[in-house]
Amino acid sequence: MADQKTKALYAGTFDPITNGHVNIIERSAQVFGAVIVAVTDNPTKDGPLFALDERLALVRDAVGSIQGVEVVSFKGLTVEFARTVGANVIVRGLRAVSDFEDEFAMALANRDMAPEIDTVFLMTAQEFFYISSSRVKEIAGLGGDVGSFVPPAVAEALYGKRTGGRPK
Amino acid sequence: MADQKTKALYAGTFDPITNGHVNIIERSAQVFGAVIVAVTDNPTKDGPLFALDERLALVRDAVGSIQGVEVVSFKGLTVEFARTVGANVIVRGLRAVSDFEDEFAMALANRDMAPEIDTVFLMTAQEFFYISSSRVKEIAGLGGDVGSFVPPAVAEALYGKRTGGRPK
Amino acid sequence: MADQKTKALYAGTFDPITNGHVNIIERSAQVFGAVIVAVTDNPTKDGPLFALDERLALVRDAVGSIQGVEVVSFKGLTVEFARTVGANVIVRGLRAVSDFEDEFAMALANRDMAPEIDTVFLMTAQEFFYISSSRVKEIAGLGGDVGSFVPPAVAEALYGKRTGGRPK
Amino acid sequence: MADQKTKALYAGTFDPITNGHVNIIERSAQVFGAVIVAVTDNPTKDGPLFALDERLALVRDAVGSIQGVEVVSFKGLTVEFARTVGANVIVRGLRAVSDFEDEFAMALANRDMAPEIDTVFLMTAQEFFYISSSRVKEIAGLGGDVGSFVPPAVAEALYGKRTGGRPK
Amino acid sequence: MADQKTKALYAGTFDPITNGHVNIIERSAQVFGAVIVAVTDNPTKDGPLFALDERLALVRDAVGSIQGVEVVSFKGLTVEFARTVGANVIVRGLRAVSDFEDEFAMALANRDMAPEIDTVFLMTAQEFFYISSSRVKEIAGLGGDVGSFVPPAVAEALYGKRTGGRPK
Amino acid sequence: MADQKTKALYAGTFDPITNGHVNIIERSAQVFGAVIVAVTDNPTKDGPLFALDERLALVRDAVGSIQGVEVVSFKGLTVEFARTVGANVIVRGLRAVSDFEDEFAMALANRDMAPEIDTVFLMTAQEFFYISSSRVKEIAGLGGDVGSFVPPAVAEALYGKRTGGRPK
Repeated sequence: MADQKTKALYAGTFDPITNGHVNIIERSAQVFGAVIVAVTDNPTKDGPLFALDERLALVRDAVGSIQGVEVVSFKGLTVEFARTVGANVIVRGLRAVSDFEDEFAMALANRDMAPEIDTVFLMTAQEFFYISSSRVKEIAGLGGDVGSFVPPAVAEALYGKRTGGRPK
Repeated sequence: MADQKTKALYAGTFDPITNGHVNIIERSAQVFGAVIVAVTDNPTKDGPLFALDERLALVRDAVGSIQGVEVVSFKGLTVEFARTVGANVIVRGLRAVSDFEDEFAMALANRDMAPEIDTVFLMTAQEFFYISSSRVKEIAGLGGDVGSFVPPAVAEALYGKRTGGRPK
Repeated sequence: MADQKTKALYAGTFDPITNGHVNIIERSAQVFGAVIVAVTDNPTKDGPLFALDERLALVRDAVGSIQGVEVVSFKGLTVEFARTVGANVIVRGLRAVSDFEDEFAMALANRDMAPEIDTVFLMTAQEFFYISSSRVKEIAGLGGDVGSFVPPAVAEALYGKRTGGRPK
Repeated sequence: MADQKTKALYAGTFDPITNGHVNIIERSAQVFGAVIVAVTDNPTKDGPLFALDERLALVRDAVGSIQGVEVVSFKGLTVEFARTVGANVIVRGLRAVSDFEDEFAMALANRDMAPEIDTVFLMTAQEFFYISSSRVKEIAGLGGDVGSFVPPAVAEALYGKRTGGRPK
Repeated sequence: MADQKTKALYAGTFDPITNGHVNIIERSAQVFGAVIVAVTDNPTKDGPLFALDERLALVRDAVGSIQGVEVVSFKGLTVEFARTVGANVIVRGLRAVSDFEDEFAMALANRDMAPEIDTVFLMTAQEFFYISSSRVKEIAGLGGDVGSFVPPAVAEALYGKRTGGRPK
Repeated sequence: MADQKTKALYAGTFDPITNGHVNIIERSAQVFGAVIVAVTDNPTKDGPLFALDERLALVRDAVGSIQGVEVVSFKGLTVEFARTVGANVIVRGLRAVSDFEDEFAMALANRDMAPEIDTVFLMTAQEFFYISSSRVKEIAGLGGDVGSFVPPAVAEALYGKRTGGRPK
């Protein structure tokens, strides 16, 4: 068994966290022993649906009790935050070819900015391929049931953002 | 720092090992502390260019002295061999979209056969994107210089397989 | 010959309808005997260029006289609307790899929400590969001739939305 | 409900039939009321693992009792056979981007040769994405358990082709 | 040697110009003898970060002294501008599969509108694969160092747009 | 107008030449003034269907009378042959995403071996997307009509290779 010093970081907007994210976090904790889950506080084009506090609370509710998982928030570049917390591995989930290309480009840019940090990819489990935060928001916004795509607290929070409330 | 029990396996035909493989092995050793490099002895459609002994020798020559790297050979399914040696992580290198799909399918099939073993992907460094064992064999076979694609001993071995010998 | 009970639904924003949409609608009517063309009245990020009434009128003008085609509008999730009208098949046109992935994810999400409804894909005829509503709007907006991309009434409507009017 | 005259054809080598094929056949029968499953008797590059008779028997065993399914064999071009049996729809399953491109090209070539026949695509259910006849043969050949990838009779037949027999 | 009459056009928003653009411009000048670099003055969805004057100045600073390169601005469709200046070749850089599909569709639409003009693609050198104007703006906006992605004057201009100024 | 020194090379197996190849050759001659069409005499895995002499004759018959086109054969690496004939541009046709990746890798390997030679890509016209030498051979081998995919002399030659002769 290796006596390594890997510290893994999994960063994202988590607007909101989905079952796909939870799956990657669980597996990262198994593969790397521990993982820092970091919720970004960066401005986005249209603004997030959930405020940073809400996103942090939903992430903590979903994965905070998994052994080895620490949930934090940060501002700025992911590689800079990785340096700050001493992480040498950035974990990313892959679902599809379009993911792959963006992730590829970002991993290369990160390697240019921080050669000492490597990016490691896990394939999202196939039952979560089609789940993304934006699709979940779209379905919930149109009154669809998102109970099988996100943790229960997230589903409730999504219904709470709807004018029409909980779909029947 | 995590106190993990990750044991990583990087398996392939290595017919022959390229600088792209070497890059993935070096980074696997860094990320996971140690990595077992396993050369498959399975029958291939057209047969390998290099015999198992030659492939093993070239792999050992290229990466045998990297700390944490152990080079072995095996027969049969990769997930079965992973179980035998107690590896819980299979490492794969990704270069391109076509890689991605095959790797995706294989990772899912492996998960079905061995749910306790996870597959982790590293992106091949961009200077090695276009290098594959088959392209290197094709270029060497047509008399091209492969000195920047493979370790020196592999280049010599490839020229040795040519009727025309070393290109001038 | 089969004595089947297929009822097909082809839903979209149609902002505006293009010759590619018309091609898929014609072929759906042939393959399934009849098809309900449903124009969505859902809010979009930037708002549509054409109001729902305009979009409905242009769709009716383009395909309303094809045998077996019924044009309607709806609000909400496509699978919910399919249930409401008793459709058991959702038809989608495929043009390219990027289409494919989004469509794949949406089909899987739909299957999760409505297992009794299947998604069936037709390949857009090759002369319409490069036509999309957004590209047509962009070209018309820059003063280009869109006469070979959309039905005549749509071209006129697009020129009507331009400050500069009809390009010479 | 449409009063259509669709006759669907699903053709392939089926060397051997997998659970992914079975899923497409079941859904084709539902969508189109009936489907002709046609096993090709064309020469392949390396020859099939199973003879035509074996492949036909395994297909019949797996899907012969599904209502609306008829299993036959044929020689020559699929579009010619479609014409012979009066089918106006060719059904194809899609799993991945690489599938998509080959299928796209073949559908376009078929449309050129037989404009009256349309190709319709169904997405393979996600639990069968990673299953292909060639991967199943490879796994079985290396002694892996293929029980969750193919019908039971096919698994037995695959073990029967192995020198080592049934894996323990 | 051919006595041809090729006149090449390389058009874009250049918001801002990157080292990837510079690479394509240098190689276009070599392959075609000369190239017109045209900065578009068309309205974009969110508006450019740099005004047309700034973009033109940064492009001129970066490539204005390369032999055979002429830098201009234009409004409207690229194919119309190509006709105006007598260009018969539009040059495009390709980085990735997602580029490829958009570029493919645009090249086909252009061919429909202007059959006498051909589109020619150069592959972005691999060290610039991951550089895009939007990624560079994102990284600079988050305080990252973009010195290896863009010409020095562009890096300074990007830091000038930041509230926080030059990152330390 | 540029006073350039471009000499273009379009190399391939041409087993046999298709209408897609002819389209690329015609457009290369227009864009570059002249193009050397080079038929490779390298050993292939399964051997070509047509001998080098036959392939050369069919290429000459199809494109030999186009102004600026010269047809030759060669052995060895394409970049080495480009150097021998003084070509500084290698022309490649692109049809699809899968093409793209192989072509990308080969262009990068070529750039490594011969930095003074650039690779330039033309998009195959959309009516030829689905035509490849291997698909044409497969269709002709199964008795299909390939008259709209290849020049007439090639169609005759393909039927001549069939046991059954010309399809009725």
